[in-house]
Amino acid sequence: MIATQQLAAHWTLSPDIRFLNHGSFGACPRVVLEAQAELRARLEAEPVRFMARELEGRLDAVREALGSFLGCRPRDLGFVPNATTAVNAVLRSFAFEPGDELVVTNHGYNACSNAARFVTERAGAKVVVADVPFPIRSEDEVVEAVLAKVNDRTRLLLIDHVTSPTAAVLPVERIVRELRERGVETLIDGAHAPGMLALDLDALGAGYYTGNCHKWSCAPKGAAFLHVREDLQESVRPAVISHGANSPRQGRSRFLVEFDWEGTDDPTPVLAVPVALEFFEKLLPGGWDEVRTRNRELALEARRILSATLGTELQTPDTMIGSLATVPLPDGASDGRRDAFTVDPLQAVLYDVHRIEVPVFIWPEAPRRWLRISAQLYNSEADYVALAEALQQAL
Amino acid sequence: MIATQQLAAHWTLSPDIRFLNHGSFGACPRVVLEAQAELRARLEAEPVRFMARELEGRLDAVREALGSFLGCRPRDLGFVPNATTAVNAVLRSFAFEPGDELVVTNHGYNACSNAARFVTERAGAKVVVADVPFPIRSEDEVVEAVLAKVNDRTRLLLIDHVTSPTAAVLPVERIVRELRERGVETLIDGAHAPGMLALDLDALGAGYYTGNCHKWSCAPKGAAFLHVREDLQESVRPAVISHGANSPRQGRSRFLVEFDWEGTDDPTPVLAVPVALEFFEKLLPGGWDEVRTRNRELALEARRILSATLGTELQTPDTMIGSLATVPLPDGASDGRRDAFTVDPLQAVLYDVHRIEVPVFIWPEAPRRWLRISAQLYNSEADYVALAEALQQAL
Repeated sequence: MIATQQLAAHWTLSPDIRFLNHGSFGACPRVVLEAQAELRARLEAEPVRFMARELEGRLDAVREALGSFLGCRPRDLGFVPNATTAVNAVLRSFAFEPGDELVVTNHGYNACSNAARFVTERAGAKVVVADVPFPIRSEDEVVEAVLAKVNDRTRLLLIDHVTSPTAAVLPVERIVRELRERGVETLIDGAHAPGMLALDLDALGAGYYTGNCHKWSCAPKGAAFLHVREDLQESVRPAVISHGANSPRQGRSRFLVEFDWEGTDDPTPVLAVPVALEFFEKLLPGGWDEVRTRNRELALEARRILSATLGTELQTPDTMIGSLATVPLPDGASDGRRDAFTVDPLQAVLYDVHRIEVPVFIWPEAPRRWLRISAQLYNSEADYVALAEALQQAL
Repeated sequence: MIATQQLAAHWTLSPDIRFLNHGSFGACPRVVLEAQAELRARLEAEPVRFMARELEGRLDAVREALGSFLGCRPRDLGFVPNATTAVNAVLRSFAFEPGDELVVTNHGYNACSNAARFVTERAGAKVVVADVPFPIRSEDEVVEAVLAKVNDRTRLLLIDHVTSPTAAVLPVERIVRELRERGVETLIDGAHAPGMLALDLDALGAGYYTGNCHKWSCAPKGAAFLHVREDLQESVRPAVISHGANSPRQGRSRFLVEFDWEGTDDPTPVLAVPVALEFFEKLLPGGWDEVRTRNRELALEARRILSATLGTELQTPDTMIGSLATVPLPDGASDGRRDAFTVDPLQAVLYDVHRIEVPVFIWPEAPRRWLRISAQLYNSEADYVALAEALQQAL
């Protein structure tokens, strides 16, 4: 087995910090940053050639590589800077009418729940929240909670593949199947999924699936995709309407043309995606499968270490864990904190005193705060042991 | 006077190409690219610290520098990747009702005219096109063309400060004043303005003003702003709804909080803006004023050289020229070209044979095609003489 130290050398993370929060913004291997710098140098040497004449071909090459990684046809992939932007594009394109219902879950990502409320309020439609328990005891609980809210008025389900506050891998395959039987489409926010979970988007068959490439695929920030099933593409327009609305298609769909250009921006994060995908495929003998397995095993071990030290119970079955996990803290909600946006005092102590970067979450519905740990190749068991020791001191 | 060669050394443009199209995507001085690389290295050393804890303060510092450059209060500035995105945000936020009219001009930027059609069609409202003649003989012609289309149903005017296909500086001060007297707000697409024209946005008093920093201010691609007059800020929402919709404000407006975060993206283009502003302020003894004057004089000289060689008349008065100008070609519209998106055969010859990057425009309403030349500090008279000679051979 390749030592963590050897793997960590591929990253440019500060050696002074134990970085246990890959989940929030990812972190780029050096080789990806170098490839991006090279692309940017080419762009700046001849901006018009790069942006106006070469970009489409370069994006097509990214689409090929990404399609093969995600298990889907390249032509069903549009580019966006992040999953939130993709969720906005789909929701703002969806023709909600008064009385329509959009189902979300209480574990949903706040930014996207905001977008859901925004579009439904404008249309006189309604957001309906499916209450998934936490701790979660089984996948069945999730499926049941969602189905309990689906009825004749349901037009769409917005659900996370991996939940952000609670780090649970939800059974989206089952949910998509159940909802399609009921004539309801699903928009999956797979912000954390690509690189954490093996994906086969064609087999999944969801109407809409978005994922970030900057998290667990380690592309630069600003690289994400929106997959739309072919029969729904005509109705999905980007959040930013640009030239694509009336430019000649030359055999391409409007979906591709519009999502390939939403105004001038730095295209190098997206263009660096294939470098990141190839880096991981070649890094370990077992390629991406080994990367995902190694990270998942480390995340499971980390929560065992932390739960044992803190004396708190596990919040989700092992089967619902990827490379992200939550660990409840033994004490109640922090007095020093009133909302989910500000930094918890414990988080500040862990960073300032113990030099550990790890988020402390609160959630209006849960009595306790918890940690969310990430496991990426640059992390080792020693990181979580150090965190457990720091928590014993700090709590 | 500092020699062009000395100034051109600040850029990383390919020495093999005469780059006469600064207008499309700009070009970054080396010092800006280095500052951006340094920011990106910091980000990747500690992604969470940079993105979650430091970014707001860093954006506030950019807002200060940019506000002073634009002549406006920093707190009225939101960040966007490009002007098209800002136009989409304003138009999608505007509560058009059936029968409402949105006035645009026939010289408008295609991407933004598309956004205008998109939002009005959805609302049962209407885009009304003000026909500004071309050639333009005076500012009066522009003001009259716009006012001729303003009536009781007019809700908003969308107009370019510097037109893209025709490179004319429009009299937005007069237009904003006339329209405010009639109770109509103006959304100015100043994509080309910051760095080309001296701006005083507070004095201008437009409801909405957007500008790119990546064009004539030479920031990296992905840096632009939206200025909204304070009394209108509550109603303007970004194209991407994110955490800002319900995050605590801590004394900040929702406008600021929402436009400061539209999902994870690379913030370094925006963060490099102050470096670009300071670079130009210090580069020439007369600071930004001298930069703008020098570029404008070169653009005027360039169109004199080219018009004399080609025997074609000037299309706009000198007073309506910034650092971008059009030069009509002596022949008719190209047979080889059917739309405004594909590359004109002449443009290809100029690039392939003569190694000159310059766009050839067509416009459905004009019988002739034309060149659009840009003048930035790295350009010299010799560039346009070379272009004139190349045109004599190619035509």
